[in-house]
Amino acid sequence: MIIVLKPDATEEEKQHLLDRIDELGLKPHISVGKSRTIIGVIGDEDVIRALPIEAIAGVEKVIPILKPFKLVSREFREEDTIVRVRDVEIGGRSFTVIAGPCSIENREMLVDIAKKVKNLGAHILRGGAFKPRTSPYSFQGLGEEGLKYLAEAREITGMPVITELMDPRQAELIYKYTDIIQIGTRNMANFDLLKEVGSMDKPVMLKRGFMSKIKEFLMSAEYIASEGNLKIILCERGIRTFEDSTRNTLDISAVPVIKDLTHLPIIVDPSHAAGRRDIVGPLSRAAVAVGADGVMIEVHSNPELAKSDGQQSLDIDQFKETMDSLSSLLPIIGRKL
Amino acid sequence: MIIVLKPDATEEEKQHLLDRIDELGLKPHISVGKSRTIIGVIGDEDVIRALPIEAIAGVEKVIPILKPFKLVSREFREEDTIVRVRDVEIGGRSFTVIAGPCSIENREMLVDIAKKVKNLGAHILRGGAFKPRTSPYSFQGLGEEGLKYLAEAREITGMPVITELMDPRQAELIYKYTDIIQIGTRNMANFDLLKEVGSMDKPVMLKRGFMSKIKEFLMSAEYIASEGNLKIILCERGIRTFEDSTRNTLDISAVPVIKDLTHLPIIVDPSHAAGRRDIVGPLSRAAVAVGADGVMIEVHSNPELAKSDGQQSLDIDQFKETMDSLSSLLPIIGRKL
Amino acid sequence: MIIVLKPDATEEEKQHLLDRIDELGLKPHISVGKSRTIIGVIGDEDVIRALPIEAIAGVEKVIPILKPFKLVSREFREEDTIVRVRDVEIGGRSFTVIAGPCSIENREMLVDIAKKVKNLGAHILRGGAFKPRTSPYSFQGLGEEGLKYLAEAREITGMPVITELMDPRQAELIYKYTDIIQIGTRNMANFDLLKEVGSMDKPVMLKRGFMSKIKEFLMSAEYIASEGNLKIILCERGIRTFEDSTRNTLDISAVPVIKDLTHLPIIVDPSHAAGRRDIVGPLSRAAVAVGADGVMIEVHSNPELAKSDGQQSLDIDQFKETMDSLSSLLPIIGRKL
Amino acid sequence: MIIVLKPDATEEEKQHLLDRIDELGLKPHISVGKSRTIIGVIGDEDVIRALPIEAIAGVEKVIPILKPFKLVSREFREEDTIVRVRDVEIGGRSFTVIAGPCSIENREMLVDIAKKVKNLGAHILRGGAFKPRTSPYSFQGLGEEGLKYLAEAREITGMPVITELMDPRQAELIYKYTDIIQIGTRNMANFDLLKEVGSMDKPVMLKRGFMSKIKEFLMSAEYIASEGNLKIILCERGIRTFEDSTRNTLDISAVPVIKDLTHLPIIVDPSHAAGRRDIVGPLSRAAVAVGADGVMIEVHSNPELAKSDGQQSLDIDQFKETMDSLSSLLPIIGRKL
Repeated sequence: MIIVLKPDATEEEKQHLLDRIDELGLKPHISVGKSRTIIGVIGDEDVIRALPIEAIAGVEKVIPILKPFKLVSREFREEDTIVRVRDVEIGGRSFTVIAGPCSIENREMLVDIAKKVKNLGAHILRGGAFKPRTSPYSFQGLGEEGLKYLAEAREITGMPVITELMDPRQAELIYKYTDIIQIGTRNMANFDLLKEVGSMDKPVMLKRGFMSKIKEFLMSAEYIASEGNLKIILCERGIRTFEDSTRNTLDISAVPVIKDLTHLPIIVDPSHAAGRRDIVGPLSRAAVAVGADGVMIEVHSNPELAKSDGQQSLDIDQFKETMDSLSSLLPIIGRKL
Repeated sequence: MIIVLKPDATEEEKQHLLDRIDELGLKPHISVGKSRTIIGVIGDEDVIRALPIEAIAGVEKVIPILKPFKLVSREFREEDTIVRVRDVEIGGRSFTVIAGPCSIENREMLVDIAKKVKNLGAHILRGGAFKPRTSPYSFQGLGEEGLKYLAEAREITGMPVITELMDPRQAELIYKYTDIIQIGTRNMANFDLLKEVGSMDKPVMLKRGFMSKIKEFLMSAEYIASEGNLKIILCERGIRTFEDSTRNTLDISAVPVIKDLTHLPIIVDPSHAAGRRDIVGPLSRAAVAVGADGVMIEVHSNPELAKSDGQQSLDIDQFKETMDSLSSLLPIIGRKL
Repeated sequence: MIIVLKPDATEEEKQHLLDRIDELGLKPHISVGKSRTIIGVIGDEDVIRALPIEAIAGVEKVIPILKPFKLVSREFREEDTIVRVRDVEIGGRSFTVIAGPCSIENREMLVDIAKKVKNLGAHILRGGAFKPRTSPYSFQGLGEEGLKYLAEAREITGMPVITELMDPRQAELIYKYTDIIQIGTRNMANFDLLKEVGSMDKPVMLKRGFMSKIKEFLMSAEYIASEGNLKIILCERGIRTFEDSTRNTLDISAVPVIKDLTHLPIIVDPSHAAGRRDIVGPLSRAAVAVGADGVMIEVHSNPELAKSDGQQSLDIDQFKETMDSLSSLLPIIGRKL
Repeated sequence: MIIVLKPDATEEEKQHLLDRIDELGLKPHISVGKSRTIIGVIGDEDVIRALPIEAIAGVEKVIPILKPFKLVSREFREEDTIVRVRDVEIGGRSFTVIAGPCSIENREMLVDIAKKVKNLGAHILRGGAFKPRTSPYSFQGLGEEGLKYLAEAREITGMPVITELMDPRQAELIYKYTDIIQIGTRNMANFDLLKEVGSMDKPVMLKRGFMSKIKEFLMSAEYIASEGNLKIILCERGIRTFEDSTRNTLDISAVPVIKDLTHLPIIVDPSHAAGRRDIVGPLSRAAVAVGADGVMIEVHSNPELAKSDGQQSLDIDQFKETMDSLSSLLPIIGRKL
């Protein structure tokens, strides 16, 4: 950590700061420049981070040097983590396609979509049973009934399934039915929920908060990892910006940036980023080209009847078209579906 | 709701759309312009909102007309809501000051600060027992022990207390000890938690998500209200922007905008918005001038030893100075401390 | 245009509004809903847009229906515009690579880089002679001397050249030396400059303002087009967001969104979006996959000696690697280098 | 400047970096921590800033220590700058009100508004003759004719006037008629224009770019100052964020932050920040309370007929009301109208 003193910091203020550093068992390195004095602090970073150094008189700013995440960092583990879910691998040289409806509406619809996306090459089935809706008056999901249909669709198609956990009180219930536990964008910083899934032994897909920096995203992954669960799949799903022609702005750069910082796999969700169906195909291709480990796409057999997210769901034909283009791109990138 | 058709929408597409509208018991009003056909849809807005009209072929865009919130809107109740907490009133002509440390660190510190801020005119004592920290390796709060100290500080000073609820499993515990339940910025869209406090009979302070539009903020208040609890205090605490000289950007305009849209009281938290102590005073004065119903300020007897948020906490002298300036401004605005 | 009246608008206010609409030769269509009255206004959109309808008492909001740009819209011209610069085509089935140093530092360096990038398949040479620098104390470019080197490099390599125009007083000078006139991100809304290049007969590359919505970007293109110049190449180069691990956030979705709205070609500048060299390769591949018409990449023979943007410039080896991967991707997308 | 090396930087890379630092006549201070080596570089900051250190192999990141602006910084001049325009002072203990229409529409309207705002206590008259409009089809201002009316209104009322300069080719013309030259938000980073007004001897009002950080804003002021003109008035006018209930988000914190960094006066423009008339009053009061040196308010005698910005202009009664509230607030803050 680097501490920059104010140009008018007094000798007393400086001494008080050095005393505080000493009390904590840390070692200061002082360098005096023409217009600023700078103090480098060496020692246990966790101790240093906990201190409100900026609250000490005479301090202009405090600059951390080390990254705050550990277990999920490339420095901790150099090789890529591959998360295994039944017979599907996420990460490494495979490219994983997760597809399905936004919410589970009924048994027939889910099984129908599941069969169709499986047929077209999807690996994992998605479907929400508890839905985070901005309005209390919107459809809130089928609850456990939906989870049962999901399990049934798995049995019929053989695809592993993923569904969202929103409330720690439903952790056991979700655990019972799903193969991957999804933490949604609104819960990326719900730390109690992160600890809960951190203590489970099932893979977790952590979606980036739509207002979260990449470093905060990785700190949330660190929460899960710090409880012992390293089977984490990251998901970039767009961030909130001033641009309003898409629902969010897909941060495609996040993929290589994240691959540089962590060993965890990262997939892209073009459906939620775009919020409109017509560009899901191009964004999926961009995800392949930029080096993502997979995509998660909303698919519905009849989007105009969907109880949620119909405007951004592909129909079966559009999904087929997208899958076809991904299959031709992937070998060039050195990956396979 | 207004539906704009694409310039190249076919007659069939148009008819299909009209059929869908009819099926739902809604009434269309068609107006054909030079380059666009527009369909106004009249009927139950909740039914209309639930439909993914944008997923229907031939539709260019869909424009909602009505506001999605009801119980919290000015149209539902014209006069200002005043929330009563023991003998303190929030809203109306009073201006409420909530003060105290970021987190409860020990009994002595809390009681000491409580007495001092009470003495200087604060009305309500704040203090966190469960802390949402971005790092799993940071101080996470004292838990129930902290809540007990908070209750003790209330007994000693007579001030009502406020503390944050983060996890629905702790709802009962928090309920038992606090006078106002705080929902933090990261949980503004934690809908299960909102429903939980919506079914309680204690006042709730809902902080704006730092990534949330005003309309989403009011929809979260609607979640609480829809479960029966209308004792809601809103809190503007800054939004995330590209500017990095403050931790967040205080959206001061949100105060009059929100007063126009809802009958609920709204207070300002300058400490979290700024993330730096030196501008908390000026921002508190701006909150008074713009018409807020109160402020929530972090105060610590020795900020450089604080276990969290030390850099943005006022010390007792700085808090006194701020209170002095607020007392002279308030009568001009027609309010009293 | 749709005008929504306030729920408490009086009959008088409504009549006054209708009188104003009538005065302007426009036709109102009134529909009275349960809680709002809505007035559709039909007629010349330019007349309507010019009116501050929102300033009229009783009006709640005004919703425009038509897009404000015309000449650059798909509705005006359905087929893709192809911009020809000497023997290079931008748009259509080709994919154009513009490469070169950020600023022209001296003759030798420029000619050396020009030969090398030409050799590796680049089509157009970039290089700045007048540099927009955030500090008045930074290198400001070689001026006309730089332009001469640029023309010389063109002669030697046969590549067309592009350079930035920042000041209308240099329009003639730039015109004399360059093949494509670049309007930089900071000047996207410099309307006098746009008019200036709009009246020229050379192609213009318009970079998106890092603070501009796609609709504003297209309105700036409309400024150029409205003066008669339709040889416009758009360039997405990242927008400012809260994310700070890249200099800006590349808005990759902008490519298909823009292709839907306009017939103009759109290329991607991954160097300025990223602000860091290590992800320029992946972002270039994403640009190909998403359907862009080309990329503009900063290349320097020795980035650590560059007088500007060294941190984001590829060296020759890195550029070769990127070109190799683009050549293998392009045929899959149905394009050629 | 602090250079952080990558954990896997080689001895050779480190040596190469040290050689580069040495070549430039700078002095390195090396400190070796447990997981990172850090090099402090001491010497001429302008030399250091010009280097693309991040482009050198083995470097993880580069952290500047000093602020990049000098002449406009508090360190350069401690006491507040007061800008004098005829008999009006901006800065110090006065509070300056600039008022008038968005654009000059005709002689009668301008003179009428000028007399009325003068009467109500305004100090300076605003009015645009050349208007930056997002659409080429909108009213573009009266040009020199408008400037003549402005000069006439000054003669009649005795108020100094301010108008915007957009194009360096009109610098002489604007100079001839105006007392303060305004640089608009879209031109904050138009560096040629900044240099142009930097070499003039009239006060300049520099509006913050709506997508600019405070540090960039001050760098633009530095451009003007570096040419010799220190008569600069800064103006906060809102920044672009995701919130859409106001046109921009007024960054009220910018006022105290800027006062801490620079000696220049700073005023607030609530009209452009809000983009809606109903909150201009509250925001003006907040500007007083937070410590701004003045406000600039759009006023029109009949907003619904205004040729630009009618929706955000106060009418005369609303302006009177606002002035009344400012006059009662100012003495409390220790200022006078």
